Amino acid sequence: MHITQGLKRAALVNGPGIATIDGERRHTWHEFADRVARLAGALISLGLKTDDRVAILALNSDRHLEYYFATIWAGGIFVPLNTRLAPPEIGSILTDAGAHILVIDDALQSQLANIADHTTIPEHIIFAGEGEPVADLIQHEAFLSTSAPVPDANRGGDDVATIIYTGGTTASPKGVMLTHTNAVSNALSSLAILYDGDPWTYLHTAPMFHIADCQWNTGVTMLGSTHVFAKKFVPQEMLELISRHQITHTALVPTMINMLCQVPHVESYDVSSLRKVNFGGSSIAPAVIRRARQVFPNCHFIQGYGQTETSPNIAMLLDKYNTDEGPFAGKIESAGQPVFAMEVRIVDVKDEEVPRGIAGEITTKGPHVMRGYWNKPEETAYALRGGWMHTGDVGYLDEDGFIFIVDRLKDMIISGGENIYSTEVEHVIYQHTAVADCAVIGVPHEKWGETIHAIVVPKKGADLTEEEVMNYCHQHLAGYKCPRSVEIRLEPLPMSGAGKILKKVLRAPFWADKTRQIN
Amino acid sequence: MHITQGLKRAALVNGPGIATIDGERRHTWHEFADRVARLAGALISLGLKTDDRVAILALNSDRHLEYYFATIWAGGIFVPLNTRLAPPEIGSILTDAGAHILVIDDALQSQLANIADHTTIPEHIIFAGEGEPVADLIQHEAFLSTSAPVPDANRGGDDVATIIYTGGTTASPKGVMLTHTNAVSNALSSLAILYDGDPWTYLHTAPMFHIADCQWNTGVTMLGSTHVFAKKFVPQEMLELISRHQITHTALVPTMINMLCQVPHVESYDVSSLRKVNFGGSSIAPAVIRRARQVFPNCHFIQGYGQTETSPNIAMLLDKYNTDEGPFAGKIESAGQPVFAMEVRIVDVKDEEVPRGIAGEITTKGPHVMRGYWNKPEETAYALRGGWMHTGDVGYLDEDGFIFIVDRLKDMIISGGENIYSTEVEHVIYQHTAVADCAVIGVPHEKWGETIHAIVVPKKGADLTEEEVMNYCHQHLAGYKCPRSVEIRLEPLPMSGAGKILKKVLRAPFWADKTRQIN
Repeated sequence: MHITQGLKRAALVNGPGIATIDGERRHTWHEFADRVARLAGALISLGLKTDDRVAILALNSDRHLEYYFATIWAGGIFVPLNTRLAPPEIGSILTDAGAHILVIDDALQSQLANIADHTTIPEHIIFAGEGEPVADLIQHEAFLSTSAPVPDANRGGDDVATIIYTGGTTASPKGVMLTHTNAVSNALSSLAILYDGDPWTYLHTAPMFHIADCQWNTGVTMLGSTHVFAKKFVPQEMLELISRHQITHTALVPTMINMLCQVPHVESYDVSSLRKVNFGGSSIAPAVIRRARQVFPNCHFIQGYGQTETSPNIAMLLDKYNTDEGPFAGKIESAGQPVFAMEVRIVDVKDEEVPRGIAGEITTKGPHVMRGYWNKPEETAYALRGGWMHTGDVGYLDEDGFIFIVDRLKDMIISGGENIYSTEVEHVIYQHTAVADCAVIGVPHEKWGETIHAIVVPKKGADLTEEEVMNYCHQHLAGYKCPRSVEIRLEPLPMSGAGKILKKVLRAPFWADKTRQIN
Repeated sequence: MHITQGLKRAALVNGPGIATIDGERRHTWHEFADRVARLAGALISLGLKTDDRVAILALNSDRHLEYYFATIWAGGIFVPLNTRLAPPEIGSILTDAGAHILVIDDALQSQLANIADHTTIPEHIIFAGEGEPVADLIQHEAFLSTSAPVPDANRGGDDVATIIYTGGTTASPKGVMLTHTNAVSNALSSLAILYDGDPWTYLHTAPMFHIADCQWNTGVTMLGSTHVFAKKFVPQEMLELISRHQITHTALVPTMINMLCQVPHVESYDVSSLRKVNFGGSSIAPAVIRRARQVFPNCHFIQGYGQTETSPNIAMLLDKYNTDEGPFAGKIESAGQPVFAMEVRIVDVKDEEVPRGIAGEITTKGPHVMRGYWNKPEETAYALRGGWMHTGDVGYLDEDGFIFIVDRLKDMIISGGENIYSTEVEHVIYQHTAVADCAVIGVPHEKWGETIHAIVVPKKGADLTEEEVMNYCHQHLAGYKCPRSVEIRLEPLPMSGAGKILKKVLRAPFWADKTRQIN
């Protein structure tokens, strides 16, 4: 399997059709394929060799997609960087990746000097923004147009195509190596669920450095369909783009769906073109889906469950299960069933399979599973022990093979030998009308190993005491699941780029001089 | 990629659901998975080792499917035999494959003695029929039920899963080695076109030894859907099965579709359940599709183009193109566009790519392409030269990447340096109202290399002369494309098992002491 095959197919079946729309700029698939072959030549002219890394630190754009394909066409490895990270974090990733070329845009170039304090900046920096670069950088259009097209390096199969970093907020970023087979098989199994025989117009609005959107670089191109780019997700702008370009498909997280539904006068936008939304990151609340169906009347919502290490899809939940009524009721809270070519097994701490309905670590096997972590053979061997990718998610399978996620393994609290799922406790606390946000973590305890600690942010103006949270939990949870301590906090909880609460950061002060059993 | 993963998925997501229906016999996916693991154990108890071949000579049945999965589960290679071949042909295939175990049923066991005249019959013969075996053979149910289940051998990727023989009518049968990745990627790319989110009930009615149906062993199982078996294709029985089991999907050839439409009182059958027919072998006439849409009102017809060597799909034609009106008119005569993960290139005799619209040999590359021909390294290297599978089909690509098949390369006539496509001449002759059947072949000529010879079978009672055929051709074809000689023949033309006219047989007497340029 070759990622570039999809690009050749697009040029074959839809050469004069529109490949990319970025603001006023459009390219046909014939033009796009030619630009990719030229850009690959330009990268090689800078000394790029097989498996060399090209990093990009830029908001979404057609050029982001050009570097994805051009790097792979040239035989290199594409490394999209999380634009929300701080300069020291970006520096440590650039060091780890050993990037030969860095691509940057208007929005991010101001960080270059700060990043340089933390790493040796790659020798070649290309400015792929719209305006003028502040420093003396290589200019994207001139760079591309003066180069001759080169033939496809024809990398494929288990060759690494991308390295996507996870855990950038920790001391040691991990680069997930994804191969050509990973990307193409993930695209095929996603298209088996989402493709309906008609052309797509896909909107990149979730960040293109994240696997949730990045995966569609391959899938949408294989279709020979149209990519549209929003620099970043802004709810009102997204509605305008849907209307202007008759967007049919996009990838979002549930929070984004909720934000779209709450845009004032949302009903005044023509969003009838939107046919399918692929969302990931968490399951969706029935109330959100009901509202989303009103706002997007022709749209199906398909949940994908997975992680960067699995390209990302392990499971998908079809739209028909997004209901709390009828024979499918209850499935909406799941992460769906394994996609067609992936196997799922729930295991205990000894890596032995547990019966249906019993929670354990979710492991998976199949063509979507990464080749490993870049330069981290030990972490790779541990994550892939026994031939199965260990997701670090705790969940169980129901009788119909639907996966129900219970918690992150690292966030599970083991207290007096009992497993307590932090999410279960949080769900109860969130039901309290005065609670805006909360996180439940394990803190060290001499006798029980850990005890349960809740950090709660009250809604603006709400009056909430620690005692009230404790009492509320005791009304709704078994005693051993109730927090032993509660902290009311007025500042927001620390969040990841993907909008998840960083429990590791919250746990850190408690564990400064101790080691958790699972970490 | 692992074929057995699909079976595990079926048991995971639809364990209590019906896996197979064969007459009155039904098995759930839990039962089917257990039977496969037991049958694999039984095969191993006969001495089956990794890569050993299990051949089956039997009509369609649930047991055919059990041997497919059990052989692969045990680490062996499954070799389905064409039941229409004569004993010498079957003998030469069994010899070539070196089969360790032969599975046979009621219909075919009478041939055993005749086959034994042409090969050393495998040591172990299993009777998987419904009645009593004539000889002292291993009995399927007892064999299976007394064995303990064994773990999956976990073969995958480039390991060979099946060998399917082509060219059984020639002196030298060729065994096409298809791998796990071939089968799974072909299933994924087919599901991307055909899967619609609802469960299937698939009817095996085309022969299960042929790739057109055999491919769905994998795909339907990955869905966890239901397989229904018809011993063979009988139009009226098929209509009854569709009605009785609410069949949703099947694989056919256009002739079969035509035959179904012509069953007396076809409108009296409830065939409303049929949602999709995957047909292959040739394109379909607009008149046939119009009639088929009347008979099967809820059904989409999706053409697949390919061959055994490509698992089989190279291209597919979506149902919306089955029209001779509107913007899609003309595409119905094509073989569709390349499927998502396959690349197509049209080349001249020097293997150089030709421009769009120019005919040449169709070559293809991608995960569906076979590993090679069994024990035929030279033929393998030749077919896969330059990394591309050479299909032996002549065709061209239009501006939208649709493939139009012009002829088989071997049937093309090269006369005085001009390429003449036999099918083009035949299409003209078929338009003559007195013609029932015809074949146009190249016969040797000292000066021009070859000249065009037409063999024509008139309709019953029709009066047709050689001269009239010649004149008719001169009215409708350029001079150099007209037959130089015509033979009126009253007996039927020789046909292959797949219903294709055997031009090689027709050519043989003319070329007895000469060698064709292309053969």
